[in-house]
Amino acid sequence: MSKTTIKDVAKVAGVSVTSVSRVLNNRGYISDQLKGKVIQAIEDLNYTPNEIARSLYKNETKAIALIIPTNLNPFFSELTFYIEKELANLGYHLYVCNSLNDSNKEKIYLELLSEKKVDGIIVGSHNMDIKEYDKISGNIVSIERKINDRIPMIISDNYLGGKLATEELINNDCKSILCITGDQDESSPANNRLVAYSQVMKKNRLKEYIYRMPFTDTREEKTKKIRSIFEEDITFDGVFAGDDLTARYVIQVAESLGLKIHKDLSVVGYDGTSLIRNLFPEIVTVVQPLERIAIKSVEILLDMIKGKEVKSEYIFKVELSN
Amino acid sequence: MSKTTIKDVAKVAGVSVTSVSRVLNNRGYISDQLKGKVIQAIEDLNYTPNEIARSLYKNETKAIALIIPTNLNPFFSELTFYIEKELANLGYHLYVCNSLNDSNKEKIYLELLSEKKVDGIIVGSHNMDIKEYDKISGNIVSIERKINDRIPMIISDNYLGGKLATEELINNDCKSILCITGDQDESSPANNRLVAYSQVMKKNRLKEYIYRMPFTDTREEKTKKIRSIFEEDITFDGVFAGDDLTARYVIQVAESLGLKIHKDLSVVGYDGTSLIRNLFPEIVTVVQPLERIAIKSVEILLDMIKGKEVKSEYIFKVELSN
Repeated sequence: MSKTTIKDVAKVAGVSVTSVSRVLNNRGYISDQLKGKVIQAIEDLNYTPNEIARSLYKNETKAIALIIPTNLNPFFSELTFYIEKELANLGYHLYVCNSLNDSNKEKIYLELLSEKKVDGIIVGSHNMDIKEYDKISGNIVSIERKINDRIPMIISDNYLGGKLATEELINNDCKSILCITGDQDESSPANNRLVAYSQVMKKNRLKEYIYRMPFTDTREEKTKKIRSIFEEDITFDGVFAGDDLTARYVIQVAESLGLKIHKDLSVVGYDGTSLIRNLFPEIVTVVQPLERIAIKSVEILLDMIKGKEVKSEYIFKVELSN
Repeated sequence: MSKTTIKDVAKVAGVSVTSVSRVLNNRGYISDQLKGKVIQAIEDLNYTPNEIARSLYKNETKAIALIIPTNLNPFFSELTFYIEKELANLGYHLYVCNSLNDSNKEKIYLELLSEKKVDGIIVGSHNMDIKEYDKISGNIVSIERKINDRIPMIISDNYLGGKLATEELINNDCKSILCITGDQDESSPANNRLVAYSQVMKKNRLKEYIYRMPFTDTREEKTKKIRSIFEEDITFDGVFAGDDLTARYVIQVAESLGLKIHKDLSVVGYDGTSLIRNLFPEIVTVVQPLERIAIKSVEILLDMIKGKEVKSEYIFKVELSN
């Protein structure tokens, strides 16, 4: 028996070959009538379109998923912007998942990868157990988190950031410097900021003060904690904040207590998004090269998808604003 | 000839029915060896899986696309957050497209709809010619833009917003009030803020001053324009800014010129995102109910997908902060 072709389907359905192809590929405008005719012909002829075999082999979706904690934080919304921009330039579409406080959501998006509904994943989220990733095959790159040896990590130089921030405060004659950091675990690259802070403080024979404040705390919770820190016995003249929002909350509390910023208290933030720098051109902060991190993440992920060799780590320099 | 079934394929391939189903649906872990065997059996038997016919009929992708100008603006990044959150609760994934200055990108995402790669689109972008939408069938809802009668619009009450802002400035004893607005066209709902400003000013026998500043201007461009406004002959004691970022730039310029905010100049912004209100708890702004707008957009879109009747317009109240 000679194999049925798309031409036979078109003939039996009484439509053009192009129309059959449109229905099979679900592309362009398709009326219900056309669809019905083509499906009937396919069933009558027991036709197996080559497209099935082809799509099974090809597996390309041209879709990438980005998993981040939350678009409410300008660091991640700018990351989303630059990643989407770069992917669009290269013909890819982007799924965005805000996984904050919800490891199940992270899991659901990772399943898109096993189900081959996306070609790859960029993960900038931190709430799922790292072991879960060992079960997953497929192309993943990670931003600011070491997951495993198979998953390349794109990071900025956290040690350098911590060093620049602490040295800046010491250069401003601060003697009593508080470091407010997130609740990341010790394996997190962000922890290197803390290591740098400790080393610089030790080198300058200054006492270390570290306060851990969960990333997920609301403004109200953070402000309350900062207020109680300032109301304690120690008079801080410098604060190295883990991100720019926290730096702003520190400044708000300090000003409400009558402290003069720069004179009584110096504050250095972290991230340096364009939004925060536009809103506070005077802010002193460690600037991460967000656009370059985004572009590199896309480049490495697409290299993996093409089967190219990639390194396990890509580190970007940071710099102090102003 | 009796129709070939999935059982025949499994038998010829020497694998289980479940394995054949996994290959056909591209679901779960599939080794290349397994895939090869199944595809070979499919070809040998000239098998048409029922799944093809089913998927052609069903057409559900559980994917929605959101087209916004830019995730760099907190209004749209918070909109993204709330829309993604609501969709995820309902089992949908979200594509995000930043279409600022690029109507072609808007078009590419709209094609996802014609190609049935998404079940629907939420559009909060404004750069594509409205006529283009007339050619597109499929489920679309629009945020803050009247596109056509088929596309429901979710908006906040722009007239009320303009009225509240202008009255607030007049209550602050401002006599010379500048309205800085975007470059939206007259058909844009945002234009009603301007209509309200004009009516309130006329009612109070005050002279109107309107300045149009493109949304796409950078901070530098906006700041330069604001500076030249303040250096002109007219001494403004009130500014109604089209968005909170512009309000901040006005305050920055005014302070750099030695003006005292509240005493010499009152400023009212627009949008009232949680980020801006966290960073500037003292800001006076018209607050849009972003989360409710997001949830309503999702609700209306999913209603359309289910074939339910929807209204052509949904209007939300706004209120003044503080």
